[in-house]
Formats: sequence, structure tokens, C-alpha cells
Amino acid sequence: MMEPLVYIKGAKVPASQAHVAIFDAAIVLGATVTDLARTFAGAPFRLGDHVDRFYRSCRYARITPPVSRDETERICRELLQHNGALLAAEAEQAVVLFISPGELSVYAGSAGGGDMTPTFCIHTFPLPFYLWRHFFDEGAHVVTPSVRQIPAACVDPKIKCRSRMHWWLADGETHQVDPRAVSLCLDLQGNVTETAGSNFLIVRNGVVISPAPDHILRGISLVTVAEICDELGIGFEERNFQVYDVINADEAYLATTPYCLAPVTKINGVTIGEGRPGPVFARLMAAWNERVGLDVVGQIQASTAPA
Amino acid sequence: MMEPLVYIKGAKVPASQAHVAIFDAAIVLGATVTDLARTFAGAPFRLGDHVDRFYRSCRYARITPPVSRDETERICRELLQHNGALLAAEAEQAVVLFISPGELSVYAGSAGGGDMTPTFCIHTFPLPFYLWRHFFDEGAHVVTPSVRQIPAACVDPKIKCRSRMHWWLADGETHQVDPRAVSLCLDLQGNVTETAGSNFLIVRNGVVISPAPDHILRGISLVTVAEICDELGIGFEERNFQVYDVINADEAYLATTPYCLAPVTKINGVTIGEGRPGPVFARLMAAWNERVGLDVVGQIQASTAPA
Amino acid sequence: MMEPLVYIKGAKVPASQAHVAIFDAAIVLGATVTDLARTFAGAPFRLGDHVDRFYRSCRYARITPPVSRDETERICRELLQHNGALLAAEAEQAVVLFISPGELSVYAGSAGGGDMTPTFCIHTFPLPFYLWRHFFDEGAHVVTPSVRQIPAACVDPKIKCRSRMHWWLADGETHQVDPRAVSLCLDLQGNVTETAGSNFLIVRNGVVISPAPDHILRGISLVTVAEICDELGIGFEERNFQVYDVINADEAYLATTPYCLAPVTKINGVTIGEGRPGPVFARLMAAWNERVGLDVVGQIQASTAPA
Amino acid sequence: MMEPLVYIKGAKVPASQAHVAIFDAAIVLGATVTDLARTFAGAPFRLGDHVDRFYRSCRYARITPPVSRDETERICRELLQHNGALLAAEAEQAVVLFISPGELSVYAGSAGGGDMTPTFCIHTFPLPFYLWRHFFDEGAHVVTPSVRQIPAACVDPKIKCRSRMHWWLADGETHQVDPRAVSLCLDLQGNVTETAGSNFLIVRNGVVISPAPDHILRGISLVTVAEICDELGIGFEERNFQVYDVINADEAYLATTPYCLAPVTKINGVTIGEGRPGPVFARLMAAWNERVGLDVVGQIQASTAPA
Amino acid sequence: MMEPLVYIKGAKVPASQAHVAIFDAAIVLGATVTDLARTFAGAPFRLGDHVDRFYRSCRYARITPPVSRDETERICRELLQHNGALLAAEAEQAVVLFISPGELSVYAGSAGGGDMTPTFCIHTFPLPFYLWRHFFDEGAHVVTPSVRQIPAACVDPKIKCRSRMHWWLADGETHQVDPRAVSLCLDLQGNVTETAGSNFLIVRNGVVISPAPDHILRGISLVTVAEICDELGIGFEERNFQVYDVINADEAYLATTPYCLAPVTKINGVTIGEGRPGPVFARLMAAWNERVGLDVVGQIQASTAPA
Amino acid sequence: MMEPLVYIKGAKVPASQAHVAIFDAAIVLGATVTDLARTFAGAPFRLGDHVDRFYRSCRYARITPPVSRDETERICRELLQHNGALLAAEAEQAVVLFISPGELSVYAGSAGGGDMTPTFCIHTFPLPFYLWRHFFDEGAHVVTPSVRQIPAACVDPKIKCRSRMHWWLADGETHQVDPRAVSLCLDLQGNVTETAGSNFLIVRNGVVISPAPDHILRGISLVTVAEICDELGIGFEERNFQVYDVINADEAYLATTPYCLAPVTKINGVTIGEGRPGPVFARLMAAWNERVGLDVVGQIQASTAPA
Repeated sequence: MMEPLVYIKGAKVPASQAHVAIFDAAIVLGATVTDLARTFAGAPFRLGDHVDRFYRSCRYARITPPVSRDETERICRELLQHNGALLAAEAEQAVVLFISPGELSVYAGSAGGGDMTPTFCIHTFPLPFYLWRHFFDEGAHVVTPSVRQIPAACVDPKIKCRSRMHWWLADGETHQVDPRAVSLCLDLQGNVTETAGSNFLIVRNGVVISPAPDHILRGISLVTVAEICDELGIGFEERNFQVYDVINADEAYLATTPYCLAPVTKINGVTIGEGRPGPVFARLMAAWNERVGLDVVGQIQASTAPA
Repeated sequence: MMEPLVYIKGAKVPASQAHVAIFDAAIVLGATVTDLARTFAGAPFRLGDHVDRFYRSCRYARITPPVSRDETERICRELLQHNGALLAAEAEQAVVLFISPGELSVYAGSAGGGDMTPTFCIHTFPLPFYLWRHFFDEGAHVVTPSVRQIPAACVDPKIKCRSRMHWWLADGETHQVDPRAVSLCLDLQGNVTETAGSNFLIVRNGVVISPAPDHILRGISLVTVAEICDELGIGFEERNFQVYDVINADEAYLATTPYCLAPVTKINGVTIGEGRPGPVFARLMAAWNERVGLDVVGQIQASTAPA
Repeated sequence: MMEPLVYIKGAKVPASQAHVAIFDAAIVLGATVTDLARTFAGAPFRLGDHVDRFYRSCRYARITPPVSRDETERICRELLQHNGALLAAEAEQAVVLFISPGELSVYAGSAGGGDMTPTFCIHTFPLPFYLWRHFFDEGAHVVTPSVRQIPAACVDPKIKCRSRMHWWLADGETHQVDPRAVSLCLDLQGNVTETAGSNFLIVRNGVVISPAPDHILRGISLVTVAEICDELGIGFEERNFQVYDVINADEAYLATTPYCLAPVTKINGVTIGEGRPGPVFARLMAAWNERVGLDVVGQIQASTAPA
Repeated sequence: MMEPLVYIKGAKVPASQAHVAIFDAAIVLGATVTDLARTFAGAPFRLGDHVDRFYRSCRYARITPPVSRDETERICRELLQHNGALLAAEAEQAVVLFISPGELSVYAGSAGGGDMTPTFCIHTFPLPFYLWRHFFDEGAHVVTPSVRQIPAACVDPKIKCRSRMHWWLADGETHQVDPRAVSLCLDLQGNVTETAGSNFLIVRNGVVISPAPDHILRGISLVTVAEICDELGIGFEERNFQVYDVINADEAYLATTPYCLAPVTKINGVTIGEGRPGPVFARLMAAWNERVGLDVVGQIQASTAPA
Repeated sequence: MMEPLVYIKGAKVPASQAHVAIFDAAIVLGATVTDLARTFAGAPFRLGDHVDRFYRSCRYARITPPVSRDETERICRELLQHNGALLAAEAEQAVVLFISPGELSVYAGSAGGGDMTPTFCIHTFPLPFYLWRHFFDEGAHVVTPSVRQIPAACVDPKIKCRSRMHWWLADGETHQVDPRAVSLCLDLQGNVTETAGSNFLIVRNGVVISPAPDHILRGISLVTVAEICDELGIGFEERNFQVYDVINADEAYLATTPYCLAPVTKINGVTIGEGRPGPVFARLMAAWNERVGLDVVGQIQASTAPA
Repeated sequence: MMEPLVYIKGAKVPASQAHVAIFDAAIVLGATVTDLARTFAGAPFRLGDHVDRFYRSCRYARITPPVSRDETERICRELLQHNGALLAAEAEQAVVLFISPGELSVYAGSAGGGDMTPTFCIHTFPLPFYLWRHFFDEGAHVVTPSVRQIPAACVDPKIKCRSRMHWWLADGETHQVDPRAVSLCLDLQGNVTETAGSNFLIVRNGVVISPAPDHILRGISLVTVAEICDELGIGFEERNFQVYDVINADEAYLATTPYCLAPVTKINGVTIGEGRPGPVFARLMAAWNERVGLDVVGQIQASTAPA
């Protein structure tokens, strides 16, 4: 059976041969920058926006990708096309980019010094919709752990990076409440920020509200929500809010590339709004479906776990 | 030529075959816990203390190593012995342990769910003394970047973890001042903490001072310094200090497993003390040499970069 | 049947007649200062220390008790004696003092202005040991909620006050993990502080450690532990620590007047030490038993819930 | 003479019989949620908005009122009607709602456990306008004490709660400056927040400015001001400001249900603007008078203290 | 040769006779408030705005200037006229106002007590354009030191004051990177604030962005930029941003009275945008030139250092 | 009549000729470092310690004094001797050192660039004891303003510097409470720090307590107190404390060079201890008197204000 291809260190190799050395900065330092885009009906969605954001993260992290922005986008498309052909027709794919500063040769026992060569990798995987189906059947449950989000004075949350130990620790606490709960970290001042894998939004009196943009990753799905709000004449505000506002919201959402927008129906065990997807959610998804030419939620709800 | 062995996922494999999958949590999340010990004259130094600290880090991170603490120590010793035999007689080795929560199977395209199997690896490398020789010839230069250390409210600095993007960012600033400068991060309150790879100590009026222990990694070399101070009747205090105290210190040091203790002679371009290794340094290293049966600094100063 | 007496507003009244007006500052502002002592074998324990602390809290809160410190202690003893006579021989009592700035007459519809007369109340209740029996059978489970302890810049935690909404909120989160879990609040910097009703201590390498004294209530039981440590030659330190230290402690305790000292065996679902009362606990309680002339833990374990 | 009625624990009782037990959570924990509305010419003003806010506070505090929101509003109206009939024709009333988690039965000596029954109370009192007359004759004097407002990470200021010890402490400092001064607490970052009983607004260059809404209680009077500004074409902004901005404001106000809007003419002894009610104040109150059908300020200035 | 005149302590004196006593609060406390305006083609620019801001700073600092606001403006104009006549035709001048609380007579050995007489001084100097020419030839390089801006809880950055030790310390670090670099201080939360002598702005997607106005001095040049943006239909936003946003900005500027607006092309060694003045800069300066009737940048680039 | 001499810019000049240029960094930036010593019975006290601290402050501020440390001490002694001869026999003197980075030549209209020459000044003044007499007659009253001490992340409080605007602002608030009150600033966390001119100490249960040394200037008088405590067997601790601890202290003091140690008897209007100098104060001053050979308090109490 054919294997998907992975682009790594300048070459496309079968996935089973795509490895990272144990002395790569990706492993030793977690100093990795990443991004992730997906397909709808097989076509990449806002891939250019994802690649642009990836390059912004790279600039901040002082890691220079070995190929140009356009070449990067081209490789993404090629991999999606090649690897998609190996999948069932209805499958959708994610394409992941990541880059580390490169191998720490000294750790490998060879001579150090000189400039490092970044380790740049692009790979794909089929979106496991079945994992998120319960978000749409019951709504997600978010929990605020005692672990706080890392402040911008340390690492700016506006880059998508892989030094994510705090999220792992947060989940360790959150899963004590509910094994399927999603960690929603507060910042050091007690503001709601985001989850490990998504932006977090609330709706109050018909207005969609996202945290102040300087404390969170600027998600492409969040931008899509903002654009749809603008089209539909739904208010969209960016300002800090707290747990009180979530508890008293009419609706709440997770916004993220893999599953676009999921309703949140509980926080710390307290029901939000009516405890089910609300009318603003329906309007937003209707517009989203139109943009991508398929029923986003239906596709997820139709998924099943692999045998 | 024979290769060193690496212990990974339960097996000892030649180093060239020791890889980590691109969808391992070590790479995707940086949620990796680590530790590092070294040899003196080929014999492991305080290996038990390092393994104990590694297990404490694992408990905090809720990652359960697949083998017992004693088995871990045994594997370390075996690798050091086997791999040391491949090196020149005078070489010293580091042994590195790291563990991640395991592979994110979903990313790999296979079914998710179920518990993850941690990725546990132990490997060695010869200590590249030549990289640190200049610390002993000229003294290290520490620079305080604008990037702050991650607070314990996010990730406790007492664990040795590999979500180290903030250190990479710190170095990006610090190297603007001096390409060989070492980043010395302040915490959010402006206290001196530690460097990416070492504890930081100062000497004032004959007393060795280390930052309050709740803000820093409890280095085994730091513990060794404390013990030696106790033996020699040198005062040893643990309390917060700031850049003022470093500028006005009599001596300052980096304490770390690979090179034990190095003199720091400049901070932000300002000379510390006399600008050369001081009398307390000489006393501490004399005692250290006695403990390990060799001339620690001499060994480093005699090193040369590989051709 | 005879009723216990309550001292309120200068008179001793039957408990069923002891009320607070709905426009009292105790209810309108929560600006109440309190303290609580207990008996062992019917005799008050360190009652003078509790009364002294109560008067210190009053000074900070600028509320002047209407009777002298000595008169207050005398009333406590009288109530304990009178009310104790109504109880079963083996019962122990708590005596509670509280004072508010007094009634807000305006709220009552009468003329405001002039100085307020503090509302001062002393009452007793039999200690419900059966509620805490499980701490000694299984050990307590502490959970760190996202809610933080109020900083000293707002209200100093060194006073025992009844503006405790944050503890109520903390419990709302904590009980999602475990209905019997005890909230252990972190401060804004992420340090461990105390629980709603007790001090929190850990043991590491044979040394008992309590948080820095400026962040917590100075519990009389905590002082008793410190004194016993001093007698027995057990190290006792006061310094900040974090969740890492609790997870890696050998033992942990709750120290509080009603049940003296209880073993903590879990934090956020992670087992502490061996998961059962440890050897230092046994030594501390043996000394405590000697001080009070009875088996403290045995008395609690022998208790049963009322029918 | 007839007494006003108080609704408490499900019954309407004469005010002199409305008490709270000394072991109620309202007294023991201060874990009470509250709200307050008033009448104009005897008619309740925005009562529905107050009841809605009360229910939002309850949700946050996890206290479930024993009656529905609509029933609550109905009881408020009934009490206002009944109790108003006992007052002079020109009197106005406040209606107060408060709820605590209920009685801590253990403290009462009876068996604990089981769910608590909330203590829910609604009562009224005639508004003591004479207490606020000097605000309109001379302007209020606000003072910033060293005590800081409690941050949202501990208790969200958006709920109206009765754990108000910090306000009591703030007043203890503020009244050293001026016995009639009003405490204006800063937050931990030094931003102006609100007073114990009112929102605080400034006017600069014709624009009314209120602190960012996530740091303060969203007062119904503040909302009224915002609506009036919108009607009159006066700018209304919500953003953080500091003492500098108050000192250099053209006008400043206290906004609160009992007296609507009062001019502030001094801060920390420094005169604000011209030191008297300004032109924007006059416009706002003219519109307010129109809304409620009476001269709000005139009514207050005509009041006299009871004999 | 004729000397410029300086207004000090109520008199105009030749510059060589304008001194401050060593026991003046300006020297002993640095408790000085200041402002600075400039000429274009010899005519003062927005002098009234500068004088107004100076009086606002004075109010905050509780220092009462000995002459009225209008008299102050008149003296400024007189000095500019008189002193300008002594200069080459093409020279431009700055006029500086400063005021301290006055002389600490006790320090002088005479009797203390009584109210102090403020030391009020107005002086001018020719603008040394040659010092800033390189900003326009190469672009400015900003560096973020580890030193943080003083928070508003200590001294509000909205006043122009001369307690500027933190800026001196910041430059000590920044000049280690590049002797001509400009310190750009972050606040305690990691937000970009301003430089010692200018506001800092970025451009992203055609919108000019300035930090939230409560953290910075409200520069008159910043206001001018805002007004020009409004005229030209260029978006102008005030909100917090961080180093990430600067690194990924299209353009960045320093805005300040002496040289109006200078392009910033590097931050911490990383090139911003194209590394040269951008199209928005050109539009802003074209409008500025029109306002002042000369080529602002051309004038600076034509300057030469004095022999 | 003869004038005292002032050392300034390398020369000794009559005091009436000692000025600082209006464009000196001392005035423009407040970037001045200072120190102050005094005489007892005409003999300088711990002058060497003051000069050493001055040189440490200079190193931190990167200002290099133009003469050596020993030469500086020599000039101090010469001035004290010369100027003391002009005073009454019983007078005591202060000697003040200050240094700024020098004149900003550009502000003066001459060419900028090149290194600056520091402005170094040493002068004396007779100690105005009559100003502090009331501290010893009634005790000092300290008030905690809303203004916070500048954190070490901005300017380290361990240097004695003259960027003191925050103290001026603090006094503006404090004097509203009591015109003779002394501002006692809290830090951003709410800890007690120091006053503008002295260290602050409390006594509790016979132990003298000073704030943690990293948040305050290390006063020479504070060191003297610590030494005397050591001699007399009085406990001396350095740890953070808060307003609660001051209110409940047995005694409290101001420690400072000019008047050594003064009793504090009120904080924010609340009496401390017995409201008069306590027994520990008497012991400390007895030892101090012995050290300096005169009755320190008596000398102050005998002083009178000049006619």
C-alpha cells in the first residue's frame, strides 16, 4: 500500500521514514514554530493566510525557513494533492508546517559551532472528525485550570509555537473534572484567553466577543468568524472578558481550523445559555457552509471512529 | 566503526537509528521532561540525584516512565559504559534522559484514543569542553534580555522541561550584545533567576548567594556548591537578588552539570568584581576537584575543538 | 429541653433567639472579624491565643470590641462551661467570636449618622467530628482551583475575616473534581497559600514546611505544629512553595483548630508520598495527644454522624 | 403603627421579625449576592434590569434562587407597594434583594450534609436623601486609599456581592483625609475602578468616560448614563484611566441607583474642573429628570435629616 | 556676542547666568515637570497645546506655576523671538519649560518650613538636526532593554517629568547592542510603550497603531499624526501591542516634537518591513510639510554637525 | 562673613557660587546618584560605608566618578572640617555627594556627541534637628498613600537616586491626612517598603524586623541597628511584612542618617503599641549613644528652630 509523503529537510519521503533526530532543537528545546491548514471537499482553505502567519511566527522566532513563502505554499498543495489521493473520497486533510532551529550537533557528538540549518517539515494527516463529534452532539465543556497562560512578556501567544508544556499541565488538571473537558486557560490577570487548540468566543445580546487580540493567537477561523459577522451584520467585538461573562453568555464557541466552530455548552460544570447550540451559531455555520460548499457540522457528525 | 547505543522505546539501538516520530508529543507539544548527568574520569557523578530529580519532574508532568527508577539508573550506567568505550580515554560523557507523553496517533493518521505510551529515551554524548573553554579563559558574559522567565503559575521552573522557546527568544536578543553572551532571564518582578543551561550565583563579602529556591531549577551542581560551602565554612544563602547585586558582586558563577562552575566576569557589559576568577572560585573548585579526582577546569582548558 | 446560650450585643440569650438584623454590616458588607477556639476533654485549648489574634484582627479592621480582651475570654469560658453541660460527656465544643461594625441604621429606615455600635457575638457548637473522619481514614484530597487567594494589597490574609466569597467560588470549582475535595488556593504569583478552613503544610526530607507567613493566616494549630517540631527536633521552615513541591512532598497536612492536623494524600488527583499518613504525622500527633491528654485522631475516628 | 413587610425564606414577615441566623452563610462566609433598585415618584425604575443582574450574579456564585426571576420581580413590586403605603407621600424607596447559600447547620449543632437551602430575602427602606445632599451642594470628594480593589482573578467585580471587607478597610484610610470622603479604589495596576457604592465617570473634552467594563460592576445607572449620552449625542467611551485623568477632567461623577448621578469636585484634595457641577452634568440630569418625571437633584436637595 | 535669554525665577537673564541651586528640588528630588515645543520656519508649532499639557502635568504634581498659563505662553514666544534673532536664518528652536517645587532651604543651611516657591524656568536652544539625520538616512534601530517602564501606579507616564533614571539605565543596556540604538521600554506586562524621547507607532495593513493611551505620554506629535490620519483617511488605532507586532509591522515610527516623525527600520537587530521608510510615512510627512510650510525631513537631512 | 565651601566639578568654591547648569542631566533627567553622611560631635560617622555605597550606586548607574573612592572620602572630610569651623560648636553637619552624567551640551546650544563629563558635587549643611524634634516628642505618623514604590524591574531601590517624583506624589496624598505625616510606600504586591528618607522597622515580641533587603535601600543606619541588635542579643529579621504587622507591632521606627532612629507611633491614624517610644527603642538608642559618645535624642530634643 502506498504511503503518504512528508516533506522534511528538503526532500519528500514516505511518512514512515520521516523522523526527527533526538538532538534536534525541536526535541531538545521545543523551539519550534508551526501552523496547520485544512481542506474542505479536498480543497485547501485559506492556505495563504496560514502560510503568511507561519512566516510571521518565524520572523519573531528568528528562524529563517530554507524555502520561500511561495515555495512553501506550493509544497503544501502538492502534498495535499498526493496524499489526498490515497484517502477515501470523503476524507479531509490537515497540512502541518513546522520548523525548528535545527540539529544541535554537539549533542550528537559531532563538532558544534557555525550556523544551524533549520529543520523544516510539512506533512498531512486525515482529519479525525469522530474525535470532535461529541462537541456537536452535546457541546464542549470547558474548564479553567489553576495553570495560567504564558504571558507575552515570556513568549508572545500570537505565535503558534510548540513549547506547550503549560497546556499539557492544564489538561492534567482539567481532565480531573471531565475526561473530555477542554482546558480554557486564564491569563495572570484572570482574563479568559484561549484553549490549547482553539480560540474561544462568546455571544452576548447578539454580539460575538473575542478576547483582546494581543493576548491570543489570531486564529484564521477566528478571522473567518469576524468576516462572516461583518457580512451578516452581527456585531463582533474584541475585548477582554472573564469567567463571569462566559457563565452568563448566551452562546460560546471554540474556533479552530480542524472543526471550524464548535458550540460550548458548559464551563466548570455550569451550563451556558440553553445548553445547546444557539441561533447565532446556526447563522454563522450556514454562512460558513456556503463559503466552503459543504455542511461542515454534518460532515463531522457523520464521521465514525476507525475500527 | 562502532556506533554508540541509544535507549529508546524500550530497546537499545545504534545512534543513527534513534529517531522520534514527527507526531510525537515531544515534537508537537514540547511536553518533554528531561535530565542530564555527566562523568568525571569516566565515572558517573551523582547519577542517582539526577534520576531522582527526573522522576520528580515526571510526577509533576503526569508522565509515568515505563521502567522503574532503579532500572533507569541501570540503563544510564550501561550506556555510559558501552559508549564510553568507543571514545578516547580522556573523554567525558553526558547522559541524557528525556520522556514525552508519547505519539499522537491521530496526527499519524491512525485511530486516536486510549492511553498514550510515553516515549522514553536515554542517550549519551561526549562533553564538548572546547565550547566552554572561553568561560575559564575570559569569564562568561551574561546579558539580561527583555524576555522574562516563565512564572511558576504557568510551568514550574523546578522541573527540567523542554518547552524552552522563551530561552531561544532570549538568546536572540542577548546575542545582539555579544555572540557568546549567555542569557540571564529576570522574572516578572525583576529578580535574577537562571540561564538556559545553568544556575547563577554571586558572591558578596565572602558569602555565596543563590536565588530563592522556588524560582529556579534546583541544579545538582548548585547542590554540590552548597555542600562544598558547608564543608569549607563558606556562607551559602538562598534569597532573591537583582541586577544591582550582580553588578556589585565580588564574584559570580554559572553552575551546571557539564562544566560544574564557571566564572562570570561581565553583566550587560559591566565588569563584575576584578573581572577574573576570584578567590572563592578557587576554593570551591579545589574542593570539587578533590571530590571527583581530577582538575575540572584544567580538563576544560586543555580541550580543543574537533578538526 | 435546655438551650445553649449565645452572647450577643451584650447579653446572653438562648440560641434560638440569637439573630442578626438584615441591615447589620455583618450581612450587608461581610465586614466581620472572627475567631474560633475549641476544647479538648472539655477544656479550652490556647483560648488566650485565639482571643489575642481576634483583637489583632479587630485593630486592623478598625472595629473596637465593646468589652475588654479579658472580659471576652471570660465570656468564652462561661459559655463553654454552660453549653458543655448540655452535651454528652464525650462531646467537644468550638467557641466562635465574631464582630461587625454594627447595624446600618439607614437601611433599617431610621436615621443614620453618628458612630455605629459594633455587633459582637460569642457562641458555641459541638464539634461535628464525623464530618472530618474521612480525612483520617483516607486522607484529604486538595484541589487548586483557578480562583486565586485575595492579595494582601486588598485584604490581609493574616486577619480572620468573613468576606469569603472567593472561597465559596473556589469550592464551586473544586467540587467538580471531587465533592469532598478541599480548595487549596494559589496566590496571584502561583504560590500555595492555605485552604478556606486550615493552614497547609508539607514535609520534605523530614522537614515540615509552611508558606511564608506574610501570605497566610497565622493559625494557632500551625503555631502548635511549629512548637512541637521544635520540641521533637523536627525542622520547621516558613517559605513559599508551589504545586510541584506538594506533588513531590513526602507528607502533607491540613492544620486547623477543629481537627488539629489531618493528612493530605492527594492533590489534583495525584497521590502525595505513599498516599497514607506518614511517620512525621505520627510523631506530631503523639506529641499533640500528650499536650491535650487524649487521642485526637482516635476521638475523630470514633465519631458517628447524628441519626 | 404598621410595620413594613420583609420577604425572607419564603414568607412575608414584619420587619422587626426579619432576622438572619448567626450560622447563616451570609454571616459566616459573606458569600452573599445582592442587588438594589429604587423608585421615582413611587414607581420602580428599571426593576427588571436589576433582577436580571441579580440572577446573573447568582449563576456566577452557583446559588440558585428558590423562586423564578419573574416571581422575584413580582415580590419586589408587592413589597414596594405595601411598604410605600406606610411612608410619607414624597418618600422614595429602595428595594434590596440578597441571597446566601443558606444556613450552615453544623454550626447550629444539628446534623450537616445534604444540600443547603439558600436564604433569600427581599426588603425595602426609604431612601435617606439627606445623607447625599452635600454631594449636590458641594460636590463629592473622592480619595484613593492604599487598599486596592479585589481583582477578577479572585472575585469578579461584575457581581454585586457582600464580601466587602476591602471597602471597609478603604474607608478606614479615606476617612482620615475627610470624614465625608468617598473611597475610590485603584486596581492592582493603578487604574481607577469604582467606589464602594457607585460607578465613577469622568468627562474630558465633552466625552463621558467610564473604566473598561471588565473591571467594574456594570451599574444600571451607568447604563442609563450611556443611554442618555447616546440620545443627546454626547460621546461615551469605556476605557481605563488613572488618577491623572481625574485630576485633569472637566467633570467627574458618581453614578448609582440611590441618587442617580452626583458631581465629584475633588480627588485627594485637588479640585476637579471648576470645582462645581458642570454643563454636561446639567444636560445628563435634565434628560434623567425627563425619564423619571421629577427633579432628581431637587428632590435630594429638598430633603432633611430626620429629627 | 549677544547671549540668548533664559527666563528663570521671574526674570530674564543671559543664558550663562541661568543656574539652579544645588539644593533645588529639581536636583535633590528630580521632582520636575517639563514640556518642550519647537518652531517651524521660526514660528512656534502648537505652542498652546504644549503649554496646556504642561499645566496638566503641574496639576497632577501639585506644583502651581507662579504665572498664568497665558503669561507662560507669552514668555515662550518672547524668548523664541529674542533668541531666534541671534541664530542663523535657517535655524529652528526648541523652547523648554520646567518647574520644580523649589529650593529646599534646609539643605542650604537656612531655616526650613513655610511653603516652597517653585523654580520655574523657560529657555530655548537651536535644534541640533544633525543628531537625528541618520534616522532619516538609515532608519532608527530600537532595542527593548530588560529595564521596564515605570507603571502608572507609581508615576503616571502621562506627565512629562524629569525623574528619568530608568531611561538612563535602559540606555546603558541598549547601547551595548548598538551605540545609536533607541531604548524602547516594555511595561511590566510586556506591552510596547514609548522611548525616552518619543512616542512609538507601527503601521500594519495600512492602519497606524499607537499603544493604549493610558500607558504613554500623549505626545503632541502623536496627536498631529492622528489628525493627519483622520484627514487622509488612514486608519488610526490606539491599543496595546507587543514586540511580535513590531517585528511584523509594515512600518514603524518615532513621533516627537524635535524631529516630528522618524522611520524605525530595526528592532533588536531584526529588520522591520522593507527596512526603509514606507509609503505611509511618505504620505504622513507630505501632509505634515504642508501644515508647517517646509520640508521637514529635507531640513534635517540638510543639516551638518557644527565644526 | 565666611561661606562654606562646596566641591563641584573639580574645584572648591564658596557655596553661593555652586550651581548646576539648567541643561545638566541632574536637572534634565534626574539621573543623579547621591549619598549622605553626618557627624556626631563633629566627627564623621561611617563615612567610608557611605562612600562605598555611593560607588556601588555609581556602578549600577554606569556613571564613573572623576576621582577615586579614597579621594572622594578625603574631600568629604576636608569640607566637613572647613565648613564645620564656621558653625556653632554644638552643630552637627551632613555631607552630601551627588553625581550626574554631566551636561547635555546640545541643550546648551553647543555641539553634542563625545563622552559626557560627570557633574560631581560634594557639599555640607548643618543638620536642622528642630525639624525632627516632634518625632521624638510625639512619635512619627506614617501614612500609606495609593502611590506605590517603583519596582526593581524599573529602578533598583538599592541605589540612592534622585528620580524621586513618586515620593513627591506620595507626599501630596499623605499630607492630606496630616501635614507632618511621613509617606510609607507599599510595593506593587502590598508589602511595606520604606519612606522617602528612611528605612522602616517594626518590633514584634522583642524581635526587630526590617523588610526583605531586595526591596529597599540598605541604609547605613539600618545596618547600625542590625549590628546593635547583634551586640545586645536582640533578634533582627529581614522579611516582608504588611500594614497589618505595623498596626499590631509593639514598636516601629524610622532609621536614617540625619536623626538615626525615630519612634513611629501611628500608621494611617491608628496608634501603634502604646503610642510612645518603647523599651526596645530605649535599648537601641542607649547603645547608639555609646557608639557616638553623645545623647542622640537629647541633642535633637534640645534643638530650636532658627529665629
